[in-house]
Amino acid sequence: MKEFKVGIIGFGTVGAGVADTIMRNGDVIAKRTGIKPVLAGIADLDITTDRGVDVSRELLTTDGFALIEKSDVVVELVGGTGIAKKFILTALAQGKPVVTANKALLALHGRELFAAAEKSKADIYYEASVCGGIPIIKALREGLVGNRIHRIYGIMNGTCNYILTRMEREGADFEPILKDAQELGYAEAEPSLDIDGFDTAHKAAILGSLAYGEWFGLDPVYIEGIRGIEQIDIKFARDLGYRIKLLAVIKQNNGDVELRVHPTFVPMNSMLGNIMDVFNGALVDGDAV
Amino acid sequence: MKEFKVGIIGFGTVGAGVADTIMRNGDVIAKRTGIKPVLAGIADLDITTDRGVDVSRELLTTDGFALIEKSDVVVELVGGTGIAKKFILTALAQGKPVVTANKALLALHGRELFAAAEKSKADIYYEASVCGGIPIIKALREGLVGNRIHRIYGIMNGTCNYILTRMEREGADFEPILKDAQELGYAEAEPSLDIDGFDTAHKAAILGSLAYGEWFGLDPVYIEGIRGIEQIDIKFARDLGYRIKLLAVIKQNNGDVELRVHPTFVPMNSMLGNIMDVFNGALVDGDAV
Repeated sequence: MKEFKVGIIGFGTVGAGVADTIMRNGDVIAKRTGIKPVLAGIADLDITTDRGVDVSRELLTTDGFALIEKSDVVVELVGGTGIAKKFILTALAQGKPVVTANKALLALHGRELFAAAEKSKADIYYEASVCGGIPIIKALREGLVGNRIHRIYGIMNGTCNYILTRMEREGADFEPILKDAQELGYAEAEPSLDIDGFDTAHKAAILGSLAYGEWFGLDPVYIEGIRGIEQIDIKFARDLGYRIKLLAVIKQNNGDVELRVHPTFVPMNSMLGNIMDVFNGALVDGDAV
Repeated sequence: MKEFKVGIIGFGTVGAGVADTIMRNGDVIAKRTGIKPVLAGIADLDITTDRGVDVSRELLTTDGFALIEKSDVVVELVGGTGIAKKFILTALAQGKPVVTANKALLALHGRELFAAAEKSKADIYYEASVCGGIPIIKALREGLVGNRIHRIYGIMNGTCNYILTRMEREGADFEPILKDAQELGYAEAEPSLDIDGFDTAHKAAILGSLAYGEWFGLDPVYIEGIRGIEQIDIKFARDLGYRIKLLAVIKQNNGDVELRVHPTFVPMNSMLGNIMDVFNGALVDGDAV
């Protein structure tokens, strides 16, 4: 059977999960697709910490660029917009497809990365960058390609949705719930990226590019997080039949593309209004669908 | 620019919609994909009725087989399991990819059709056969291909969901709501396919094949519709915090694949419990996602 060699760069929680899935489900993928994924290796600066995955030591390396040479497909899970970008451009220059969940990098440097991909005829895949397991990227790129997109609404940050859900259920204030979420591992020690809306803004910029065919970056995105939400807002919303959600709004308005991220009243009996806890949800409205 | 010629067989509501979308959004598709879809023609036994789409008379024909010869891709929208199957097998034998929304045909003859597709190296696309615009087929076939699927739950029949929604909201009985739905065009004059669960069963068989890699047909599917639902059931469900939905259940149970369609108590505060009116919804639970 034909094999393809997967090189994983970045051995954190996601990298370990990808390695584990390839080892555990490689036979399922082979049966369904006729091609078997095998690990070419895993690169990280730290290759001594136990990641809870049973990987042969010989597969571990600190040299990401050497790993790219040995791989058929490169999975970039380093994060950030520095070395991660170099890894991706190097892989593309060698004609190797890249898989990444790096939404900040795509939002800020998408134009350059996709120009490099087009030049090298290798593609970039980034389904996991927006809404985790919800197939929103592939749907916009392929399945809904015959639609003019009117609007996309998304609840795309699990940390914010978790905090808002608990604030509503427990009647508690923002600060103690955030602190609790940090202790439970649902929020980062430095939570700004999530709760101030930047993470959602990165995702809005990515969906905007798919819906409207150009890379916007973050400059045109209005961004407001959930720090200012108080119990009185939540109660007020409930009295009117709404819930407060951190919503990404991507739509065309008189020919202009509008990109916004802010707390929004969402009807309590709507589908989006019932996306609770750490879950994500997205609504896509197109002219044919 | 490269063009591909689309032959549509079946000029009903869906066929007219596809023709309209290709004419209206062909430029959008061309811009996004680099390939422009053009109509090769539309075949139907009745080519005189006005379908509300402005199609050149020269594109209309009563000869589906001649249209297949002229097409690069064939869209089968005839329905049923007779002549529709012949059209699809003819197109595949000529190496032409087929698009179909014919869930009954796929559920009952999937094995034969996909064997023909494999032999001819032409593919069958059937996203619209299950859950309309929800990208469930492509997600299971491609995006989630690395998952072992634990279970799929689906609300997949708009007519049933519409009737159940109105029964709950209005406190009315099944029969008058069905009659009203028929007058409004939300239910067929012969409603059995929908309300007795067969339509949902066809879809369950299709999703079962994607999740578990074999074609089951309808024989192993337990099927029960919504004719027997009374107000007392709906009130009982509500008192316990549930809604009644016609649910398709596709799951593995001790190694056996279980396929069921029946009215089910779904928690009122769950996402599936908030799929109302004519809308569809599906929950997919896999080991990686």
